[in-house]
Amino acid sequence: MGEIIRGKLVADRITEEVKLNVESLKNEGFSPKLAILRVGNDPSDLSYERGALARMVKCGIEVEVFELSDDVSEDSLIAHLEYINNKQDINGILIFRPLPDHLNEDRIKHFISPAKDVDCFSPDNVAKIIEGDKSGFSPATPSAVVEILKFYKIDLSGKHCVVLGRSMLVGKPVSMLLLGQNATVTICHSKTKDLRSICKMADVLIAAVGRAKMVDESFIKEGAIVIDVGINMDDEGNLTGDVNFESCINKASMITPVPGGVGAVTTAVLAQHVLKACQDSLLFPGH
Amino acid sequence: MGEIIRGKLVADRITEEVKLNVESLKNEGFSPKLAILRVGNDPSDLSYERGALARMVKCGIEVEVFELSDDVSEDSLIAHLEYINNKQDINGILIFRPLPDHLNEDRIKHFISPAKDVDCFSPDNVAKIIEGDKSGFSPATPSAVVEILKFYKIDLSGKHCVVLGRSMLVGKPVSMLLLGQNATVTICHSKTKDLRSICKMADVLIAAVGRAKMVDESFIKEGAIVIDVGINMDDEGNLTGDVNFESCINKASMITPVPGGVGAVTTAVLAQHVLKACQDSLLFPGH
Repeated sequence: MGEIIRGKLVADRITEEVKLNVESLKNEGFSPKLAILRVGNDPSDLSYERGALARMVKCGIEVEVFELSDDVSEDSLIAHLEYINNKQDINGILIFRPLPDHLNEDRIKHFISPAKDVDCFSPDNVAKIIEGDKSGFSPATPSAVVEILKFYKIDLSGKHCVVLGRSMLVGKPVSMLLLGQNATVTICHSKTKDLRSICKMADVLIAAVGRAKMVDESFIKEGAIVIDVGINMDDEGNLTGDVNFESCINKASMITPVPGGVGAVTTAVLAQHVLKACQDSLLFPGH
Repeated sequence: MGEIIRGKLVADRITEEVKLNVESLKNEGFSPKLAILRVGNDPSDLSYERGALARMVKCGIEVEVFELSDDVSEDSLIAHLEYINNKQDINGILIFRPLPDHLNEDRIKHFISPAKDVDCFSPDNVAKIIEGDKSGFSPATPSAVVEILKFYKIDLSGKHCVVLGRSMLVGKPVSMLLLGQNATVTICHSKTKDLRSICKMADVLIAAVGRAKMVDESFIKEGAIVIDVGINMDDEGNLTGDVNFESCINKASMITPVPGGVGAVTTAVLAQHVLKACQDSLLFPGH
């Protein structure tokens, strides 16, 4: 039976590391701080916010929440963003997306300070993903995948990673991050022919396709590592991934559950990014 | 024997289309114009400039060359860039890269107007490559690959494209463009294990690895389409691609030569981009 990857272990390790670094920054008189900018009260935003707040507390990172009404004007949102950009005590900014329809994300994204953009909203940071430039901030979920593989000491160099899904949230950025770890990467999607045989080549299979339990044991080779990034509701309203866990557990060498896998690591990555933003601001003041 | 893909045919078709569009713009009183900003006199820059000038003339596109001395200061270069950004009669800007070492490209790239950035220097346009946002400008060489496949009516949907090389000049952007055409994409590189068998899966193999004649018939499957983006010098000082053309020609169904393949199409793509920039400026004035 394959080893079950526990997101919590990875998150705990990252939290511990971040916490130690935050403590030493505090001893030098600097206190890392995250601003959360939320428009409206979307339940999934609020749920993620609670998780993020709890994680930041564990890490010793301060948080200030800016809550805007869901009919806020674009100019007012941008004014808030610029205020936060300029606020010296704030190192990182998380804006929940998608924004309401009347707000033009393609315009707004140009206003966030790239140096504080810990969740990869700015085109500057998006460009750095494809450039493989590690000075930027990649989005939390793809970074969480890489952190999990790192925690379990999986050397990706030369490994064949197959990514199922080509979204900007996961598929494309995770492909670029895996390439940056010297993996050979195949990107599959709804138009892929012979999907099963391509997935079966994977040393590491990353499922990020958004279809509940689509990946069963016929998609994986003996001993594959299976990372499930899917978040779906099954017919009974239970949270389930893209992978049929029961079907795959005996064939995979390692596998992430949903919940308790990748999702458990994202707020820890966010904390890591706030720490980095604070450290960078001391190294490169004025940026 | 496989069909030899002639870059010139593709370039001629694009040139003809651009020319017709330029004529109708001129009839409406608008004349598309490209600015070339060159620092120093690097022979390969000058050679590309000659090709670009000839192509623009064929298309009816005006060109203004701004030649700066190779010891120009960063601030002076940026001042030139801003002058050109603001010049109403100029629609597109091509800056030769890499710039001399004393000039910080990572800073300068933020100053080019994304709307005039026809060669994908600005992070805004780089971000759009991974986002699959076709409103931007992708770099000329990867775009030329896609134009060639389009000219030969190769439907990429569901096809397995294997890209050999992961550079920011070709490998990564071409992978994203092929993904945007619904291909399944595998990105290989120097760390890839079992490279031959992975390349052999390709319906379309894109070689952009920078090693003369590395790809022989043992890398391709019967009937594969082989696109050679390599530009290398062999031992006798002849221009040669990454593909051993003689070895592959009988097994491939279609193959690009070097020279006369992809390279012949890049200036035509540049002309296409200048046209688009001019058309966009009329649709979205003030951008």
